[in-house]
Amino acid sequence: MNDQYRIEHDSLGELQVPKDAYYGIHTARAAQNFTVTGIPLHHFPELVISLARVKKACALTNFESKLLTDIQANAIIESCDDIIEGDHHDQFIVDMMQGGAGTSTNMNANEVIANLALEKMGYAKGDYQHLHPNDHVNCSQSTNDVYPTSARVAVLSKCKELTDKQLELSAAFKERAEAFSHILKVGRTQLQDAVPITLGSEFAAYAVTIEEDVERVIQLSQLLKEINLGGTAIGTCINTPPHFAYKAVRHLSDLVGYELIPAENLIEASSDMGAFVMFSGTLKRICVKLSKICNDLRLLSSGPCAGLGEITLPPVQAGSSIMPGKVNPVIPELVNQVAYQVIGHDVTITMAAEAGQLQLNVMEPVIIWNVLQSLHMLINAMDALATKCVSGITANEKRCNDLLVQSSVMATALVPLIGYEKAAEIAKLSMKKHITVAKAAVELGIMTEEEVDDAFNTCHLA
Amino acid sequence: MNDQYRIEHDSLGELQVPKDAYYGIHTARAAQNFTVTGIPLHHFPELVISLARVKKACALTNFESKLLTDIQANAIIESCDDIIEGDHHDQFIVDMMQGGAGTSTNMNANEVIANLALEKMGYAKGDYQHLHPNDHVNCSQSTNDVYPTSARVAVLSKCKELTDKQLELSAAFKERAEAFSHILKVGRTQLQDAVPITLGSEFAAYAVTIEEDVERVIQLSQLLKEINLGGTAIGTCINTPPHFAYKAVRHLSDLVGYELIPAENLIEASSDMGAFVMFSGTLKRICVKLSKICNDLRLLSSGPCAGLGEITLPPVQAGSSIMPGKVNPVIPELVNQVAYQVIGHDVTITMAAEAGQLQLNVMEPVIIWNVLQSLHMLINAMDALATKCVSGITANEKRCNDLLVQSSVMATALVPLIGYEKAAEIAKLSMKKHITVAKAAVELGIMTEEEVDDAFNTCHLA
Amino acid sequence: MNDQYRIEHDSLGELQVPKDAYYGIHTARAAQNFTVTGIPLHHFPELVISLARVKKACALTNFESKLLTDIQANAIIESCDDIIEGDHHDQFIVDMMQGGAGTSTNMNANEVIANLALEKMGYAKGDYQHLHPNDHVNCSQSTNDVYPTSARVAVLSKCKELTDKQLELSAAFKERAEAFSHILKVGRTQLQDAVPITLGSEFAAYAVTIEEDVERVIQLSQLLKEINLGGTAIGTCINTPPHFAYKAVRHLSDLVGYELIPAENLIEASSDMGAFVMFSGTLKRICVKLSKICNDLRLLSSGPCAGLGEITLPPVQAGSSIMPGKVNPVIPELVNQVAYQVIGHDVTITMAAEAGQLQLNVMEPVIIWNVLQSLHMLINAMDALATKCVSGITANEKRCNDLLVQSSVMATALVPLIGYEKAAEIAKLSMKKHITVAKAAVELGIMTEEEVDDAFNTCHLA
Amino acid sequence: MNDQYRIEHDSLGELQVPKDAYYGIHTARAAQNFTVTGIPLHHFPELVISLARVKKACALTNFESKLLTDIQANAIIESCDDIIEGDHHDQFIVDMMQGGAGTSTNMNANEVIANLALEKMGYAKGDYQHLHPNDHVNCSQSTNDVYPTSARVAVLSKCKELTDKQLELSAAFKERAEAFSHILKVGRTQLQDAVPITLGSEFAAYAVTIEEDVERVIQLSQLLKEINLGGTAIGTCINTPPHFAYKAVRHLSDLVGYELIPAENLIEASSDMGAFVMFSGTLKRICVKLSKICNDLRLLSSGPCAGLGEITLPPVQAGSSIMPGKVNPVIPELVNQVAYQVIGHDVTITMAAEAGQLQLNVMEPVIIWNVLQSLHMLINAMDALATKCVSGITANEKRCNDLLVQSSVMATALVPLIGYEKAAEIAKLSMKKHITVAKAAVELGIMTEEEVDDAFNTCHLA
Repeated sequence: MNDQYRIEHDSLGELQVPKDAYYGIHTARAAQNFTVTGIPLHHFPELVISLARVKKACALTNFESKLLTDIQANAIIESCDDIIEGDHHDQFIVDMMQGGAGTSTNMNANEVIANLALEKMGYAKGDYQHLHPNDHVNCSQSTNDVYPTSARVAVLSKCKELTDKQLELSAAFKERAEAFSHILKVGRTQLQDAVPITLGSEFAAYAVTIEEDVERVIQLSQLLKEINLGGTAIGTCINTPPHFAYKAVRHLSDLVGYELIPAENLIEASSDMGAFVMFSGTLKRICVKLSKICNDLRLLSSGPCAGLGEITLPPVQAGSSIMPGKVNPVIPELVNQVAYQVIGHDVTITMAAEAGQLQLNVMEPVIIWNVLQSLHMLINAMDALATKCVSGITANEKRCNDLLVQSSVMATALVPLIGYEKAAEIAKLSMKKHITVAKAAVELGIMTEEEVDDAFNTCHLA
Repeated sequence: MNDQYRIEHDSLGELQVPKDAYYGIHTARAAQNFTVTGIPLHHFPELVISLARVKKACALTNFESKLLTDIQANAIIESCDDIIEGDHHDQFIVDMMQGGAGTSTNMNANEVIANLALEKMGYAKGDYQHLHPNDHVNCSQSTNDVYPTSARVAVLSKCKELTDKQLELSAAFKERAEAFSHILKVGRTQLQDAVPITLGSEFAAYAVTIEEDVERVIQLSQLLKEINLGGTAIGTCINTPPHFAYKAVRHLSDLVGYELIPAENLIEASSDMGAFVMFSGTLKRICVKLSKICNDLRLLSSGPCAGLGEITLPPVQAGSSIMPGKVNPVIPELVNQVAYQVIGHDVTITMAAEAGQLQLNVMEPVIIWNVLQSLHMLINAMDALATKCVSGITANEKRCNDLLVQSSVMATALVPLIGYEKAAEIAKLSMKKHITVAKAAVELGIMTEEEVDDAFNTCHLA
Repeated sequence: MNDQYRIEHDSLGELQVPKDAYYGIHTARAAQNFTVTGIPLHHFPELVISLARVKKACALTNFESKLLTDIQANAIIESCDDIIEGDHHDQFIVDMMQGGAGTSTNMNANEVIANLALEKMGYAKGDYQHLHPNDHVNCSQSTNDVYPTSARVAVLSKCKELTDKQLELSAAFKERAEAFSHILKVGRTQLQDAVPITLGSEFAAYAVTIEEDVERVIQLSQLLKEINLGGTAIGTCINTPPHFAYKAVRHLSDLVGYELIPAENLIEASSDMGAFVMFSGTLKRICVKLSKICNDLRLLSSGPCAGLGEITLPPVQAGSSIMPGKVNPVIPELVNQVAYQVIGHDVTITMAAEAGQLQLNVMEPVIIWNVLQSLHMLINAMDALATKCVSGITANEKRCNDLLVQSSVMATALVPLIGYEKAAEIAKLSMKKHITVAKAAVELGIMTEEEVDDAFNTCHLA
Repeated sequence: MNDQYRIEHDSLGELQVPKDAYYGIHTARAAQNFTVTGIPLHHFPELVISLARVKKACALTNFESKLLTDIQANAIIESCDDIIEGDHHDQFIVDMMQGGAGTSTNMNANEVIANLALEKMGYAKGDYQHLHPNDHVNCSQSTNDVYPTSARVAVLSKCKELTDKQLELSAAFKERAEAFSHILKVGRTQLQDAVPITLGSEFAAYAVTIEEDVERVIQLSQLLKEINLGGTAIGTCINTPPHFAYKAVRHLSDLVGYELIPAENLIEASSDMGAFVMFSGTLKRICVKLSKICNDLRLLSSGPCAGLGEITLPPVQAGSSIMPGKVNPVIPELVNQVAYQVIGHDVTITMAAEAGQLQLNVMEPVIIWNVLQSLHMLINAMDALATKCVSGITANEKRCNDLLVQSSVMATALVPLIGYEKAAEIAKLSMKKHITVAKAAVELGIMTEEEVDDAFNTCHLA
């Protein structure tokens, strides 16, 4: 027994901690207390790395303020660097969903860094009189500023990947739009034949709608750059040396490579989750569009015989366990489901954000978990859509043309010439007798074939 | 000025009340305080009537307990009867969305009934020493039992209408199902051609799915029959005479014509909104189904040329301000939107139910407003769908048949005979060459035309 | 009968329209078809006015393109001006929730304007050969560009009111924050005593969190300024004269007094509701904050005896029908409920936005109705909160001080001097024995009273 | 290379499959196609086991119908038994969130069972001419009946655990309620002092509200017992022998140990997800209650000094990284977050259920994933709440009594004797002067001290 464990203590008493573990008693208790999701912190490497960056920025600042010795500061900084490099992530074992407003996440980081640093300093793990998780690693900090700051930095670190995927997906649609630019087809409103459009215009609109949200992500992720580091417990900066917030944010900006901003009002920033709500809202907006587009792709590729059949999606797997030859639009279906999931997460985030009380929002862990999940899923879904579906879509040109010719959608082009009511008569006859609009116009004695042709040639299409 | 107003007072001071108004000072203050929705209580007559029934039941009980004189009790009861008959509803002016957990709704009722009763007793409005809104009309009661009880009774009073509409809609689908029972068509999964089905079976499934929820409404509305009347402020029955709860519920049951049940634990019943959550969840379930069905109807009737076009919905208005001859599926579109609204209401109700604190849920008004709105909308939507759409749907039999014949959906029927892999080869050839499954089977030398026909004749269809 | 009605016809046949009605057959049919909410268009005057402005902008452009005569154009423009001035709003009778993607709203406007114009031209209502709702009022337009454009302009026209209310509410908090700036009290995280703060800082944070969203509203309402006017049916500009979109948007910008932008891709803009999703998401974010603040106000004013009791809200009405002397925080309670409603609306809007198909989102009416409702409610709720609650809040200074003195929250200030573990010992003893932190420090022999005082004097507070 | 892989083929071509893998080509493709969540099927053992049970029930039926040989049937059945025993779960590698409506889940099961069976029959993995995943393991089945049936059985298999936890949690509250039955305290409505209650009654109400939902779970899980097994692709039973549905459901009922019911209308049952919507709605209802209770526990235990402080929760870990001695209510906070998550899942499930089209709901995978996650989280959360929190709660009796005595809540008891208005005067004086209700009554000359005492002794309390 003695070989496998070391004893640590806290205000509740003593506990055995695995001897090899870099985490300590707080982490061990938290691992027992929180078992709801089974998803540990290290499932999101960007969160672990962000924690280490924040800790490093604080250690640099504490050293400047002479709150850490040279040796202590170096040991902490090197330990943080190890984690930033990707080492020891398996020591971040606390469940993503936890009570305590992230205290256990912060303490997991404090303990792992303290014990890594102790070893670098030549001491045994747990020998905290030389370097203490709270007094030194967490010096001038509180969970209430470290945890949300780390989460914001983690989300920001994924935004480039997100916008890259948006651009890739948009480019895939744009490339197809160009390939389809000559294919005239029926445009539909309310699922009813409306007026002509080209398949290229249809796909170009998908490209535009996806691309324009790149700007939205950039714009709204700015809100996440305002951080409350240095505010400590409730934003009053208790237990920080002079100018700590300013300096620590400066160091952290250098570490992440972009400008972070100290919140103007640190008390407000301590409890407000509004930036996550807006960011999740932006992910939701992207999902709403993706889902609409995937619904369209599934509809346009419906068939192969008894559907619209205007396009064909690339097959990526056999479609049915019973129906031979069936191939299904599995990638768009996947993306639809991701969209519903992200929208559900948005409700969760909204409720959790509303549940903040007084100087803190204790529901931060569920907010952070849901935002990170949404981000991962969305990145993955857009990648799948671009590479496994959109880029391989082919057009069924003949089908597009056949449907257009059979339809009465050109009747609208006659309205400016003969008025709505006469054009309606023509459209009705055309539909009833399954004849062309031109034939119907002639049959009703309203226009000659040449007049109809002229109208068609001069009207706007696609 | 004196002619138009009378002066009333409460613990905050004095206020002018319109001389003709049956409501009093509390109502007047509430009307000033709450102006968010502009929808007054009397927008929902069933709620006003339910309040009057509850007040009457309490007056009957108070009289039996000798807490009201003969004259007082009679005056109150007659006033309640007037309201139950539909009179004086315009006096219920408080906004549906109000702070105070419904106190203003209860006081609006107390004041209107008191002033009506005072006039019946020969006194002037506002002459409360003879009959007081709180001491007599509200005797042995609190808002906290009267308000949720009235709301439950109001919802229950609309349930019959709801289930009637479910049955009407189901019957409309059933009637169409019979008319379409002979029309074989392509069944679709994932919008891809799957296996055959009849249009009749498709519509019969709609009838079944709507009808089966009648039982759900009946089952879950039972939860609303458990009421906390007699619990007064927090369920401890403070200020009630012996057996008040039992007797008042007995009287109320007689008045509404079905059995209401005194909650076993009145303290629990005072703060729990679980029954409304479940009931709203049931409405949501119905809406999910209706929305799916309306999506289907819009899809099946898409075209008229460049869509599935298997059915035609009855036109109820011209479709477009610009496109002549276009007719849109406006009724299903309406129902879809109602569904989204009811689902949104369900989220509102859920959040409000979660926000209860300690001995009360102060968010009852928004819960009640949303449940009643959902109910009204759903009843109205089902009526429109049944009468203005479903009953007039016609089938395009030729179209159904053409699509079926052109498709390869019969290939599945060959699997039991030749295995999945060979059947897949046949299906692929059939789709590629646009030839029938039988022809493809022969061309590949796998089966003879007779063998294929036999397979088709013996497989399950529709 | 003949006296009361006139006969109009459309492609479905004939219908009686009330003789005095400025609306026509399409409106009359729509009023019969859509009865779900009972809320007509004119419930939102800003929507009716926006429709008239759009119609006027188009008439100006059509006149320049010689598609309308001088007389026709003038008659239309004058009719629009009447509506913009507030006249004839009662003629906009179609229900806010409608199928047909807003066609009935557009036609209601077309018909009212046509008939008003006909009378100005000296003709009878319904004498459409002189001026036709479709051919002239709706010339170069489609519902699919007019309706969402009008809705965007309507929402934009309320944004100033919204941001004004945000600023008023923020100012009310700021004014109170200054009045409370000297009152030191216990700060709380997770509802547990944490570290000191001033009541002024607490209120200042509310001011900041409300105020910072003014920028958000301004930023995200920009998205609504991109409009698809001129795209007509599906964004291909069918049936418009050259440069119509550019010119009509120019005229509309002049009419509304700010710059509107023609969407770069009109096809994308025809079906995408993303701007409404983001705008609703912004309203949701504001509501999340308001609800959190109102929860805080209710908590801080809880009591008067057995609660926190640090502040007192101004009473606006008597609190209970049974409990004498009780005064309830009805205004914050109202605002909480508005928040839940707006969050529910956001789900509805999200689902409706996702349901767009191909070249159009047919669910626009429910989106527009919900956005406008949310806006109205939020404006009203913030007004009530500012004027009927926040500005009258008073502080219970003695109570704040008593709680602070009795608590152990100052122990945190000792951590930098003696370390976390010794400070924890002191805190535990202080809590256990109900003695001050200083006394506990002395009793444990860790610090002298002077050392504790020094620590308190130099630590950051509030 | 040859050593590590075997080659399999499908209609898309060939693919390498790890030589040791029991899964085959369809699974391998699906693992590449679906990577969104990283959560494989075997994360939910109850789902894998349910799949095996369904496959076994079908094999038994197919054998009876002579569609499988003795040897084939036995090999399949034994393979299923191995999986039911818990073996080979690691072979179920497909991601929970997948396109294709569960085809990949079904095929993963078909392939694993086929290869296990082939080995039992003495053949090599992949040697499908002897036993084919589609033709034999999937014989008479389709994904569209197997997948939802397995999911229903999986959910049902966790319901006992759910209701056990509900009962345990309820019992924990009941036990505490008895321990606290003598402690009189202030009851609160709207966070304002209302009327007296006992702490025991307060906790008893929690016990009741939790317990009553056991019946709800039992009642609504019944809906899941109606299954569509035997309906195959779209409910028309194509490719099944006579009475297959009836017999297979009979076998499956025997295997699970409770009665499952063949859906009356298999076509309706194929596409409808209503039972999952209702079941999720029930989990949501439970969560709404749990969240309300946890909010209460956090509020009642707030302090220790500057809060209500009526109860103390058992500490389970140190509370803060910066504030010494702070202990937080981490378990209730955890449960609140689970509640928000489950409510978010409910929105996801609702949207996915609404997205069904025609003969199938292709969004089943996200529905099933969310329902199972909600179930697991809720079971775990209730366990944590019961064992780590509720059972260790202690009452602060003195505090309860002090608050009660200082308050004016007894004034309500005087209303029946002296009327609402006079009682309000007494309450106001009592609050203003901080004197007892009795003293205020005497000072105002309204009642003697004895009369007040009598009133208190005869009124209802708790």
